[in-house]
Amino acid sequence: MPEAVLKRAQEELLDWQGRGCSVMEISHRSDAYVELAQNAEAKLRKLMNISDDYAVLFCHGSATHQFAMVPMNLLADRGKADYINTGIWSDKAVKEAKKFGDINEVKALVNRDGVFTVTDVKEWALRDDAAYLHYCPNETIGGVELHDIPVDNKVLVADMSSCILSKPINVSDFGVIYAGAQKNIGPAGMTITMVRKDLMGKTAARTPTLFDYKVLADNASMYNTPPTWAWYLADLVFDWLLAQGGVDAMAIRNSEKSTKLYQYIDSNPFYSNPIDKPYRSRMNIPFVLANESLNARFLAESEEEGLLALAGHRSVGGMRASLYNAMPIEGVEALTAFMDTFAKTHG
Amino acid sequence: MPEAVLKRAQEELLDWQGRGCSVMEISHRSDAYVELAQNAEAKLRKLMNISDDYAVLFCHGSATHQFAMVPMNLLADRGKADYINTGIWSDKAVKEAKKFGDINEVKALVNRDGVFTVTDVKEWALRDDAAYLHYCPNETIGGVELHDIPVDNKVLVADMSSCILSKPINVSDFGVIYAGAQKNIGPAGMTITMVRKDLMGKTAARTPTLFDYKVLADNASMYNTPPTWAWYLADLVFDWLLAQGGVDAMAIRNSEKSTKLYQYIDSNPFYSNPIDKPYRSRMNIPFVLANESLNARFLAESEEEGLLALAGHRSVGGMRASLYNAMPIEGVEALTAFMDTFAKTHG
Repeated sequence: MPEAVLKRAQEELLDWQGRGCSVMEISHRSDAYVELAQNAEAKLRKLMNISDDYAVLFCHGSATHQFAMVPMNLLADRGKADYINTGIWSDKAVKEAKKFGDINEVKALVNRDGVFTVTDVKEWALRDDAAYLHYCPNETIGGVELHDIPVDNKVLVADMSSCILSKPINVSDFGVIYAGAQKNIGPAGMTITMVRKDLMGKTAARTPTLFDYKVLADNASMYNTPPTWAWYLADLVFDWLLAQGGVDAMAIRNSEKSTKLYQYIDSNPFYSNPIDKPYRSRMNIPFVLANESLNARFLAESEEEGLLALAGHRSVGGMRASLYNAMPIEGVEALTAFMDTFAKTHG
Repeated sequence: MPEAVLKRAQEELLDWQGRGCSVMEISHRSDAYVELAQNAEAKLRKLMNISDDYAVLFCHGSATHQFAMVPMNLLADRGKADYINTGIWSDKAVKEAKKFGDINEVKALVNRDGVFTVTDVKEWALRDDAAYLHYCPNETIGGVELHDIPVDNKVLVADMSSCILSKPINVSDFGVIYAGAQKNIGPAGMTITMVRKDLMGKTAARTPTLFDYKVLADNASMYNTPPTWAWYLADLVFDWLLAQGGVDAMAIRNSEKSTKLYQYIDSNPFYSNPIDKPYRSRMNIPFVLANESLNARFLAESEEEGLLALAGHRSVGGMRASLYNAMPIEGVEALTAFMDTFAKTHG
């Protein structure tokens, strides 16, 4: 999270708005909190240019909850949906959706001579009568990103947990966008979901009330006590993003950061990234050492340098640099400098 | 929340355990966070004397999520359950459960000449073949508390959101206990659930994975990223409770606080509490003025005195004092002093 946001939260932790109590202690139905909540939504609508055709929901829980909520809300009429699988997160979404309907899984990630790439859209066996097409634009673990909308004329549902607010997107291209807060927004335990209003209200029977997008929309995400702290921090992050110049500025910064790291990796045979260039993620950059026996040493020495959380996900190993919005360019410069020294020492 | 807890959280907000980052930013799979999480569970087990026959789950979401999770997890075999309705929260639980099975609602709250009381257990039409009996020991809004276990030899499921850790209870009397964190534990967005292990693993089809108690238990509540900040604050609250002398000390303190307030209310005809004495809540004390036209004035003047959040719930009106663990006896003394002055001025 941006340091400025954390500092602000720290300053007012015991005394929010001079009220003598924490924002965590104030009633979510108080005028002050409702104003905070509404302002946060307005800022997000401004940042992402979200039209009134969309409800913006501040939901309890994580993207994994949405893996169930999406089919429970959207499958009702047709009972079937298409899912593009480009990595571990879209795979999880597929598995959960299969509990709730007829799911056509398109395995779109392929390994061509050691390089991971995404198959051409023309090869995808999509169904005309699918209620929606689900995909994950940025695969956090694999470091695979679909930079553009894959298909037109579908109800697109996108898990943007790891790329939301990292660049401008056209919300009206989507039926539903959801994003767990803990990458680019705030703390874990809240998910922001944008739902095109005409898609709501057809929720399946036996759906928990808090999983019903329409109920959440009709109650301004306050059917019950919402995750008030996470919502508050999201509001501070939105302020920070607006002050930074919004998602246009973020896109430039994120492009600079990822370009710098990929250029370094590609320039030094000591390191490599296994993803086909058009599908490389700007947010999560996995890399491996030519000599894998040095992995543990790389992680230990980088941590000593204050470069934290560089271990690849436990399912894939290797290294991974996550360059979310809050990471400054200086963080990338420190990383490439360390990588260069490490390569010279051990190469 | 206890001021000492908030101060500690404030101090280490940007630098947890000297790691140079916030606890909100650290991976939930890191050794440091896993240790925090396990310690928190161990402290809760100590505070409530929870045996190994029970799983302790740190769940995303609120008690309202549990209203669906309980029937989705426990109804499977028999399809039917009994619910005691003693107020607004148990009523909500009933309504949600009815989505998932055959629910027998026992309306146990009655108004006898303006005094609310709970009917005798012998009058409750319970079913021998019900999978469980659900009740809410403390009704936050109505201020009604069932101080003892209502019946033996049933799988009891209790929503303890507003009374958990306020006094000793015998966990082994229950099948499931759940409690939204935001009353006596920490911030909104997490619910702690204790489940007798033999009741798990019979989850209904079409249950979201994160709603399956067995999945949560098998993954130590880390099937996905948990609400890490809420879990961290819960750990600090558990530390505070242990330092205060645990739930035995809380029970004495809470009894002193509520006795003091009830005695004052009963001593002054300017005020009244509408609940039959054996069912009065120690946590939430609603009261009304003999002259209701003074309500708004009472609330405005009390707020000026720094006595916050005294408005009754929007569904019932009047006044309500919530005396959760974190409220010191001095808070009650300040309230009764204000009430006395107000009564003398306006009586």
